[in-house]
Amino acid sequence: MSPDPATQVDAEGRMLLRIEEFRKRRPRFTDSVVTMAHGAGGKSSAALIDHVFVEAFRNPELENLGDGAVLELPSGERLAFSTDSFVVQPLFFPGGSIGHLAVHGTVNDLAVSGAVPQWLSAAFVLEEGFPVEDLKRIVADMREAAANAGVHVVTGDTKVVPRGTADGLYISTAGVGVVPAGVSLAADRVRAGDRVVVSGPLGAHGMAVMLARGNLDIEADISSDTMALHEQVAALLVAAPSTRWMRDATRGGLATVCNELAGQTGLGVVLDEGLLPVAPAVLGACDMLGIDPVHVANEGVFTAIVAPEEAEAAVVALRETAGGGSAAVVGEIVENPGGMVAMRTPFGGTRIVDMLVGDPLPRIC
Amino acid sequence: MSPDPATQVDAEGRMLLRIEEFRKRRPRFTDSVVTMAHGAGGKSSAALIDHVFVEAFRNPELENLGDGAVLELPSGERLAFSTDSFVVQPLFFPGGSIGHLAVHGTVNDLAVSGAVPQWLSAAFVLEEGFPVEDLKRIVADMREAAANAGVHVVTGDTKVVPRGTADGLYISTAGVGVVPAGVSLAADRVRAGDRVVVSGPLGAHGMAVMLARGNLDIEADISSDTMALHEQVAALLVAAPSTRWMRDATRGGLATVCNELAGQTGLGVVLDEGLLPVAPAVLGACDMLGIDPVHVANEGVFTAIVAPEEAEAAVVALRETAGGGSAAVVGEIVENPGGMVAMRTPFGGTRIVDMLVGDPLPRIC
Repeated sequence: MSPDPATQVDAEGRMLLRIEEFRKRRPRFTDSVVTMAHGAGGKSSAALIDHVFVEAFRNPELENLGDGAVLELPSGERLAFSTDSFVVQPLFFPGGSIGHLAVHGTVNDLAVSGAVPQWLSAAFVLEEGFPVEDLKRIVADMREAAANAGVHVVTGDTKVVPRGTADGLYISTAGVGVVPAGVSLAADRVRAGDRVVVSGPLGAHGMAVMLARGNLDIEADISSDTMALHEQVAALLVAAPSTRWMRDATRGGLATVCNELAGQTGLGVVLDEGLLPVAPAVLGACDMLGIDPVHVANEGVFTAIVAPEEAEAAVVALRETAGGGSAAVVGEIVENPGGMVAMRTPFGGTRIVDMLVGDPLPRIC
Repeated sequence: MSPDPATQVDAEGRMLLRIEEFRKRRPRFTDSVVTMAHGAGGKSSAALIDHVFVEAFRNPELENLGDGAVLELPSGERLAFSTDSFVVQPLFFPGGSIGHLAVHGTVNDLAVSGAVPQWLSAAFVLEEGFPVEDLKRIVADMREAAANAGVHVVTGDTKVVPRGTADGLYISTAGVGVVPAGVSLAADRVRAGDRVVVSGPLGAHGMAVMLARGNLDIEADISSDTMALHEQVAALLVAAPSTRWMRDATRGGLATVCNELAGQTGLGVVLDEGLLPVAPAVLGACDMLGIDPVHVANEGVFTAIVAPEEAEAAVVALRETAGGGSAAVVGEIVENPGGMVAMRTPFGGTRIVDMLVGDPLPRIC
């Protein structure tokens, strides 16, 4: 029997668990009921998805666990296909609405898969008694967002559930995009030495929604960053054609995206806290709530892993795009410690950055 | 000013509204809040979709109002793309579960668009406290249904909403299929003289779900017909290659599908009540509830409009498929009266068959 790689025996014969091996392990799943944490996009979500959904539907596209699946057609043409449900509360918040999110969320999943977003579907679960005027406002926001992103809503569905069972409405969108020839983004292309680029300032969406609920005693002028990222992604791929992998940093924030990458590749991600772009108002609100901005959801920011020699060009190109003015190199990929995310602090220390645990920011998208 | 075609002046100078012109008009939409009827798939649903969604997202694919959109790629290859949300109560019922419906519903929308279903997305809105065992059962049903239909679930999403806001879970699926060269189904290919074919017995799904709720004082051995129709559709298209148009007869039943066709084409549909396949137990339950089986939802039955000379071959081919044993020609397309659906009764009379009005059968899918 080969020894468990997660353990080692010390000089006195005691079995010790090696922390880094322990961290690389699949999260355990022993929950008997669904909890809010399963929807937060962090550790519990990953465990639920892994043990219930991936387990059942097992296929190579799904196991990739990307934001979108890349599919090959008989003609050789490649499609990206993605879906998201939106249950955000409140439905309207500074900077946008559930309608903007429903379009941007799926457009961005397609864009970071390397595709040009083309078509969307929209399925509505409406609560009996929901004002038609509000529905029209939300649909108008979707139309505006779709027009800006160059996509068409081509098919849909409407269901109604009784009063008290849907918080107004839930929207599920799915999207299809075409992946241009030559574009190939995959976690297994990431190498030690690659740079971590973020396209914009962190945490604005999550904080805007939290404050819009009005039950925190914090006043701050924070708007959601919700926007379509297809143009930023296209600019990046021109400037940095060797780009390895991209992901939009939604639920669970940058920390969760980096942890997923580390888990998939076995490589480590080292972030530089001093280089992370965060707006002062967002930083202040995070501080008061005791939440790290790297755990807060964004709806208009993506992370790209780029080749070291193309990192500067990537940032220059992103900064010329709308919304990309704060783009920055914020870290790099390392061989050791593998499988985890570390943060270098401005004081010279290093700390482990875990995935989001629990659900400090419920119903953010 | 040209006279309103919906009116005529009688011998005494009175303005009369011509019923058939009135019926052809777009349903009016003056509702200020969402009602259960908006989700029933009938007249109110059509009005909401027309005035809120189609109005906002206006594009040729959406205006087709098919079950799925047919999209052309740069290579010339054609895709079908469709979505549905599922909010059925109860989640488990004789003959299936919300998991089966979530896969079959989208597979069937693709199949009746003429496509070979290939890939599905699945987005879950879970209620806090929902038992993980039930979720696993539902996901296992989805896996089984997907395997039988030859499709892969390649991408997904999970959200959690607080206790009391989602009746266990809601599932939204979207699907992508490839439309084989030469297949072209469209309402504008329908001609007077074409035959109306149904692929199986009507009303089983809706009645099975209604009785499973246990609040009606009716006992009957009725199982949902939920099944994937891709093989039946393929068999029909081989036997009847001139087939004009297909639609699966889900919410609102056969009557709604035929009314939508009549509305789109301006032609009339005449159904023969004596030819409609309905299981005796379903007919009995419908009778006790005062609901016409043509208004009851099916999840494993489609309607095809076929060329008159291919109608017999179509029925013969369907009857050889699994679940197609009751396939039958049940009516024909007529020039007059245009824009509406009529039913010839076994007693020699004829009555108008309207779309479903109100919501006698809520949350059926």
